[in-house]
Amino acid sequence: MSAKAQNTQTAPGFNDWMASGLARTEVMLKQILPSSVGPQAQLHEAMRYAVLEGGKRIRPLLTYAAAELVGADPQVAARAGAAVELIHAYSLVHDDLPCMDNDVLRRGKPTVHIAYGEANAMLVGDSLQPLAFAAIAQLNDSLPSESVVNMVALLAQASGSEGMAGGQAIDLSMVGQKITRPQLEQMHRLKTGALLRCAILMGVWCGQKTPDAHLINAMDGYSRALGLAFQVVDDILDVSADTATLGKTAGKDEQANKPTYVSLLGLDVARKLANDLHDQALDYLASVETDVNWIETRPDTQALRALADVVISRRS
Amino acid sequence: MSAKAQNTQTAPGFNDWMASGLARTEVMLKQILPSSVGPQAQLHEAMRYAVLEGGKRIRPLLTYAAAELVGADPQVAARAGAAVELIHAYSLVHDDLPCMDNDVLRRGKPTVHIAYGEANAMLVGDSLQPLAFAAIAQLNDSLPSESVVNMVALLAQASGSEGMAGGQAIDLSMVGQKITRPQLEQMHRLKTGALLRCAILMGVWCGQKTPDAHLINAMDGYSRALGLAFQVVDDILDVSADTATLGKTAGKDEQANKPTYVSLLGLDVARKLANDLHDQALDYLASVETDVNWIETRPDTQALRALADVVISRRS
Repeated sequence: MSAKAQNTQTAPGFNDWMASGLARTEVMLKQILPSSVGPQAQLHEAMRYAVLEGGKRIRPLLTYAAAELVGADPQVAARAGAAVELIHAYSLVHDDLPCMDNDVLRRGKPTVHIAYGEANAMLVGDSLQPLAFAAIAQLNDSLPSESVVNMVALLAQASGSEGMAGGQAIDLSMVGQKITRPQLEQMHRLKTGALLRCAILMGVWCGQKTPDAHLINAMDGYSRALGLAFQVVDDILDVSADTATLGKTAGKDEQANKPTYVSLLGLDVARKLANDLHDQALDYLASVETDVNWIETRPDTQALRALADVVISRRS
Repeated sequence: MSAKAQNTQTAPGFNDWMASGLARTEVMLKQILPSSVGPQAQLHEAMRYAVLEGGKRIRPLLTYAAAELVGADPQVAARAGAAVELIHAYSLVHDDLPCMDNDVLRRGKPTVHIAYGEANAMLVGDSLQPLAFAAIAQLNDSLPSESVVNMVALLAQASGSEGMAGGQAIDLSMVGQKITRPQLEQMHRLKTGALLRCAILMGVWCGQKTPDAHLINAMDGYSRALGLAFQVVDDILDVSADTATLGKTAGKDEQANKPTYVSLLGLDVARKLANDLHDQALDYLASVETDVNWIETRPDTQALRALADVVISRRS
């Protein structure tokens, strides 16, 4: 952890902010997810199992922190953040399937296909995805329709073959290959970075007005640095943490002969890279305060700063 | 085929209408699908393989026919119809996977997981779904944002656990079970009916104005009758057609011990039901011409009539 990180992570109020954000996320996810009744009760139960009670919820928290910059209604941000989390949750369910990573443990619980069977796990993922778009469409009651359509476009791009799913495909094609650092970076920019970026930009679109172009650019830069840092830390944790702490199987990348930042750069250089990216992310936040033409109040970037620290210093 | 069906199916001009609609669909799908270049070239190639060169394209044709009632721009309807077809195509890719129907043949070609492997087939489906929502979002250049958001909501509901994926889940849970006709009907209303209904309602939203409530109701009735007829005919074809004509494995339902209209009602009663539903669909079209307060011209329902005939009389 860098010195900057240590300073901001202990900022007073952030723990309360995070606890309140996490609580709001659970309430909203429970509200959006269908209840476990009716002829498709088992599917709905499995969807709730896949999403609720677990997960760091970093994506919704990023949405809330960005939404605060534009003075957005917290309930609007909660719905937008939940939509992103639903996409993230579906991707975990599908990634864990035998034809992908074949994993049996996730968030400290049996994976969805272990608990409900493979066919149901497939359908859980296939159902969570449209549920995310339905949640965004419902924001039409609170936001200009133009903004809602923009959010649909953002989420669709971040999820599909030019985003998360495309990154997965590149990842698959790279197993056992010798690859360069730019190739690894591009893979992660799609696989993890695209949805983290989407979570942040969604927040900026939660306001009542079209967001300022400087703000979008700065948030884009912040999210790119943060997304890459997130992945570098993931690779570090895969070799340095144990399964119990991670809540998922440790050492999977090495076993699967997957290229990682650690295998490419070594542990020490990877750690330095994570810290450098963290500092970059904070520089973008500083530019938000100076470059954006704030008509009303100067924005509070404290939550975004603290979240950058969380990403760097997390242990699971 | 009922007498009404025979009369309208040979209506002059319909074959040309259909040929032009099919051509427009292929052009639009090719335009929307990502090209097979870049690091995720194989995924993009597999997406194109899953969608292009094959399929009856009944859903886009229904969208076009409904869009004509409101005088919609054909290019707008083409994009909306293509979005529905992308959802349909993704569902076929996932249904064919070993953990679901485990089928090796689709549209006369090896299924996607046979051609590209299971992991890629999963990602193809996962990528086609957001591509459909992205296609709808792009309609923002041509339609009021309000309409676009409504179309996103329609597509999301039709695809998810309250629609197609929910129907799949009910289908899974019914294998080997004794079920009633209402249960079978509900399963099909979700599994096949929801997306057909969506295709038709999407067309009505392709106009420049919010559609008339009477028109939406009539189209809803038409789509429910048509959707059920579609499934009854599917069940009939599964026992009466051969694999070469179907382009997919015949006799699968019986082998899998799945309840069908034929197993529940017998072949003759199932055929009569299909014809009755067809007549119901035509009655709803007649009500469109009389009940809706058409300010401009009286709408031409000929294409919707002819498509009802196609659904009933199809051989594959």
